[in-house]
Amino acid sequence: MEFEKNRVCQLLGIKYPIIQGGMAGISESNLVSAVSNAGGLGVIGSGLMPPSWLEREIKLTREKTKNPFGVNLFMQNPKVEDLVRVLIKEKPPVVFTGGGNPLPVFPYLKMVGIKIIPVVPSPRLAKKMEENGADAVVVSGWEAGGHVGKNTLFSLLIETKKIVKIPVIAAGGIYDGKTARAAFLLGAEGIQMGTRFLASKECIASEAYKKKIVEATMDDVEVVLWNTGHPIRVIKNNWSEKVKKIEDKIFPEEIKAEKIAGSLGGQKVDDIPLLAGLSVAGIFEIKTCKEIIEEIVKELSEL
Amino acid sequence: MEFEKNRVCQLLGIKYPIIQGGMAGISESNLVSAVSNAGGLGVIGSGLMPPSWLEREIKLTREKTKNPFGVNLFMQNPKVEDLVRVLIKEKPPVVFTGGGNPLPVFPYLKMVGIKIIPVVPSPRLAKKMEENGADAVVVSGWEAGGHVGKNTLFSLLIETKKIVKIPVIAAGGIYDGKTARAAFLLGAEGIQMGTRFLASKECIASEAYKKKIVEATMDDVEVVLWNTGHPIRVIKNNWSEKVKKIEDKIFPEEIKAEKIAGSLGGQKVDDIPLLAGLSVAGIFEIKTCKEIIEEIVKELSEL
Repeated sequence: MEFEKNRVCQLLGIKYPIIQGGMAGISESNLVSAVSNAGGLGVIGSGLMPPSWLEREIKLTREKTKNPFGVNLFMQNPKVEDLVRVLIKEKPPVVFTGGGNPLPVFPYLKMVGIKIIPVVPSPRLAKKMEENGADAVVVSGWEAGGHVGKNTLFSLLIETKKIVKIPVIAAGGIYDGKTARAAFLLGAEGIQMGTRFLASKECIASEAYKKKIVEATMDDVEVVLWNTGHPIRVIKNNWSEKVKKIEDKIFPEEIKAEKIAGSLGGQKVDDIPLLAGLSVAGIFEIKTCKEIIEEIVKELSEL
Repeated sequence: MEFEKNRVCQLLGIKYPIIQGGMAGISESNLVSAVSNAGGLGVIGSGLMPPSWLEREIKLTREKTKNPFGVNLFMQNPKVEDLVRVLIKEKPPVVFTGGGNPLPVFPYLKMVGIKIIPVVPSPRLAKKMEENGADAVVVSGWEAGGHVGKNTLFSLLIETKKIVKIPVIAAGGIYDGKTARAAFLLGAEGIQMGTRFLASKECIASEAYKKKIVEATMDDVEVVLWNTGHPIRVIKNNWSEKVKKIEDKIFPEEIKAEKIAGSLGGQKVDDIPLLAGLSVAGIFEIKTCKEIIEEIVKELSEL
């Protein structure tokens, strides 16, 4: 497989169509610059962070890489308008959106030349984004870590490719050349990986969290918080067991409001939600982003 | 793509590696024989039926086709031992299992030469079935209609192929040549389809149910009964809305016990659970099993 004519590479000015999924509090300047320096596209996960945090991370990232990078804008951030002001000022090359309807911010981002790639959970929304000027879409489903869409990559890729012309990037369940190849075979023109990059050397997540990812098989992850309407996929632990026990009865408001992104930098991996995708099944070693990317590129080149 | 050397065809003595998924109360002798006569493998869905029902359907199927067919044995049937006695006596060529651990019945089925193909929701269980002598496995995940596994076809195929040598058959989300091709590209050697055959002319399901499948898009199906531990994918309707309202609060024992396979032959499609997979997205016309199969075969032969 060659990437010179790959549309995602051309669109973003990157060497390989490998994107690091925006992970709130996890993908900051260290990880983002590491991915971008390795020829992929690092993406700052703004999540529920304040605008000042985003501004600082963009500046720090620019100090650490000369290559393109992106920002993931979480539409449920209560200060989303202020975040957009930061984006207009700092002008990162591309913005990914998630967690709600991004159409209201399209004009502002386009005005200053920022490319827009919404993360969507359905072919219908992919089409809607295309109609409103999105440059590409990421389809993300049930395979993903953290917030999951209710459709799956298999169906999302096939159905979305049928109805949109812009490049489709696959997210969820991809972690190596084999899974990337599978996504390309199903029509993807780029891949996005979260869990794989979380378990990278440059990521600021705790070693204990990364170890959990390395050790986990597909049987060790599960989706919880179903009844909140915002289910998340996590690695099983005390926290998930506790949540499941509550879910089996009634779902109190206290738990709904509980912050799911807890002390991610800490070592206590048994009582916090360990967001992770099905990709845990195939991750056995903590490598650098460069190593991870080059390994995938090698496998893809052998197709 | 040629099927002479396809292992699923060789194993089952069928022309095309296309299997009709066992659907309780839906796949009886009419549908089963129609699929088998068209070169695929029809499968009787015994579900919670009494042994006498199964015996009658096997006899009726034999009257309607000379080709191989199968029986799906639902391990949660309270009379599962009596169903096995029927199977030992009637000796259908192959038995598919689901809904629980089938290992205890393996020796009895093998004793009389019946091939065994368990339906499994994880690579680990696929491996376990292989180790215990299964002839092939069906991996079925979140894409499926009715009872869903919590993994997805994308991840199931890739991970299962890594660890088992017996043929892997893909189930869930497959409905045409394009989706079948995708499954083969991911390593499947056969495909199983439920919803697609439910919406066939020969199926005894009501025309109203079939119409719902034809009209539905991916946005029109959803998974409910999550908190029972046995989630099912259905087409949205009053029933699913009612269930969801209850799920958002607490889950009473009455609903848990409610039969989900209600009056499937009736026309009142708004108040019964309409089991269906994501395949609804691509089904636009009620065709015969022969037409459905030949269309897929044609598309596959053009690869």
